[in-house]
Amino acid sequence: MKIMKKWKVLGEKTVYDGMPRITVAIQKIQLPDGRIVDDYHRLYFPDAVMMVAYTKGKKLIMCRQYLHGQGRVSLVIPSGTVDKGERPLVTAKRELVEETGYSSGNWTHLKTYICHSSYHCGNIHYFLVKDAVKICEPKQADLEEMETVLLSKGLIKQAIRSGLVVSLGTITALSMASIWDGKVRAKKKR
Amino acid sequence: MKIMKKWKVLGEKTVYDGMPRITVAIQKIQLPDGRIVDDYHRLYFPDAVMMVAYTKGKKLIMCRQYLHGQGRVSLVIPSGTVDKGERPLVTAKRELVEETGYSSGNWTHLKTYICHSSYHCGNIHYFLVKDAVKICEPKQADLEEMETVLLSKGLIKQAIRSGLVVSLGTITALSMASIWDGKVRAKKKR
Repeated sequence: MKIMKKWKVLGEKTVYDGMPRITVAIQKIQLPDGRIVDDYHRLYFPDAVMMVAYTKGKKLIMCRQYLHGQGRVSLVIPSGTVDKGERPLVTAKRELVEETGYSSGNWTHLKTYICHSSYHCGNIHYFLVKDAVKICEPKQADLEEMETVLLSKGLIKQAIRSGLVVSLGTITALSMASIWDGKVRAKKKR
Repeated sequence: MKIMKKWKVLGEKTVYDGMPRITVAIQKIQLPDGRIVDDYHRLYFPDAVMMVAYTKGKKLIMCRQYLHGQGRVSLVIPSGTVDKGERPLVTAKRELVEETGYSSGNWTHLKTYICHSSYHCGNIHYFLVKDAVKICEPKQADLEEMETVLLSKGLIKQAIRSGLVVSLGTITALSMASIWDGKVRAKKKR
């Protein structure tokens, strides 16, 4: 197995400041073989949370909404943006109630991934939520109209195949949930 | 089911031009309820291709490499950037040979997804490749060191769980492959 080293960041300058949403920087990089790259992009987005949340009846809580990047209506899992200095779990619990009206005491952090392999684009913290119950009506979102949809586990693959689920973040979450669900259960049995 | 309308783009101005890699624009948007949002970000990246490629022996062809956005070494599926005006399938066939040395006559376009639900960030075209055979050595990549790894289907979930696969694009591709594999086979039987 080849030994691969991290790239060294020799410097960085901001070329576009659109905070709190997006900052674009250019990094000066030194590759492991000594070569210098002086225009490697780094994009800073705020961290995000995504919640794979199941009701007590084992239905997956999804949101049907128009997302402008996609330019169409699709099914996504509940998500939100982490405020500066906030703990991701705190954001996740608040956003689940605000977006769907559901709440739960059963939370597991699955994994935190970086959004873009080349440019970073922020971390996404994935949570598994079980036994959620409806405690209020969802709050109207800031810009997007939104509708809660409860999906049987057996219909998830069909929803992806039909084109109703098209967000990379949502598909990743659903795969991970199917992988970690077993592990989380196994842990609790011990 | 609520009727949800597309947002109207009333205007757009470029605020950072880092082409051919990244362009950042600000759009003026009209929401379905008439409200105006005059600072919605739109990010333009070139299109990308990602290949879920299996050898004749049904092993998945992956690349082990350091990716600077992630800041670590991980397993990703072969991928590439579509040149302007190029057909994605042409890019995909070229990149698979260049990155891995493998080639195949059995290609299926699975789906094209938009990278980011809010800001767009380019399309990713996903392809399923079967019966690939090694025809040459991989070409040394431009910046990244790279190593080909052949993975048994049964080890894919384990690779994700262990943290060796962390790219949203790769996890999405692997999920989709598991979904479409059956459909593609069913089609060919008719």
